[in-house]
Amino acid sequence: MAVEDNRLNLIQSRIRDFPDFPQKGIIFRDICPILKDPAALSAVTSLFEEHVRAQFQQVDLVVGLDARGFLFGPLLAQRLGVGFVLVRKKGKLPGATVSVAYNLEYGKAEAEIQEDAVAPGQKVILIDDLLATGGTLYAACSLMNQQRAEVLGCLVVVELKELNGADKIKPHPVYSLLKY
Amino acid sequence: MAVEDNRLNLIQSRIRDFPDFPQKGIIFRDICPILKDPAALSAVTSLFEEHVRAQFQQVDLVVGLDARGFLFGPLLAQRLGVGFVLVRKKGKLPGATVSVAYNLEYGKAEAEIQEDAVAPGQKVILIDDLLATGGTLYAACSLMNQQRAEVLGCLVVVELKELNGADKIKPHPVYSLLKY
Repeated sequence: MAVEDNRLNLIQSRIRDFPDFPQKGIIFRDICPILKDPAALSAVTSLFEEHVRAQFQQVDLVVGLDARGFLFGPLLAQRLGVGFVLVRKKGKLPGATVSVAYNLEYGKAEAEIQEDAVAPGQKVILIDDLLATGGTLYAACSLMNQQRAEVLGCLVVVELKELNGADKIKPHPVYSLLKY
Repeated sequence: MAVEDNRLNLIQSRIRDFPDFPQKGIIFRDICPILKDPAALSAVTSLFEEHVRAQFQQVDLVVGLDARGFLFGPLLAQRLGVGFVLVRKKGKLPGATVSVAYNLEYGKAEAEIQEDAVAPGQKVILIDDLLATGGTLYAACSLMNQQRAEVLGCLVVVELKELNGADKIKPHPVYSLLKY
């Protein structure tokens, strides 16, 4: 536990708060300093890896959300020895795609995957930097369900508890390193 | 050499071509299958790492471009034991920022970094998935120069030779794994 606490303390010390960004009333939790500190980024990956290995017997794919899920997802996928799949904003992916509309913390958007990105029955872990209202992760879960992949759980570095994003994603479990 | 060739063959086999995406006349080189194959993604990271270690005595930071540079950059940064810095599309980063406008292969955009992302004199490696006309990488180099960081070189998985992007980025050297 002491080791884990030290890692979480390190990660927490690498989050910067910016009030009123991108709009008034929102405190932006900036994860850039985590990326800039190799020890903190390694701590994030290790904690995610340990959680996944402890909780799930088999994982087929890590699925990451555009764009900050791309920062953490491939690192975890490599540690687990599995592939990484991109959920992108609409219009970015070539070929046959499947998309779903959703509400953001501020605004609207559409999430998209390539139609052959996941196969029916594959067990997937979703990953993003932050869970706010859960709109984006909910959309990603919907895409997975639509393709009949099995969502084992969602991983985020930061969870904003007061926005109840985890409720929105139920019954899929959320694992967050830091809660605000 | 045989080992390197095998890795390049593997990576090349994981690129899919989509003609006329996102618009007519452009062949989109899709790198998603690389991410989906852990061996191919590991090969990309290893080739980048070996190149950087062979060419440069000291690297302080890896700088990755929004959004597909985020897929490869943190992996390389972790292998090198250095931090990763995000170049983002305008409006995504909180706090004091520096930005520069540039032309895309199709359209216009603005690239932005946090003002304190790099320090004067720091030696940086830029990374993205693909070099086309070089607009985005040129903008990222400009941002580094503006902050008086030293660009050691630019790494990309795919280089579209006919668009002469490497010329645009001169004198900064480009290292690409695959040339089309």
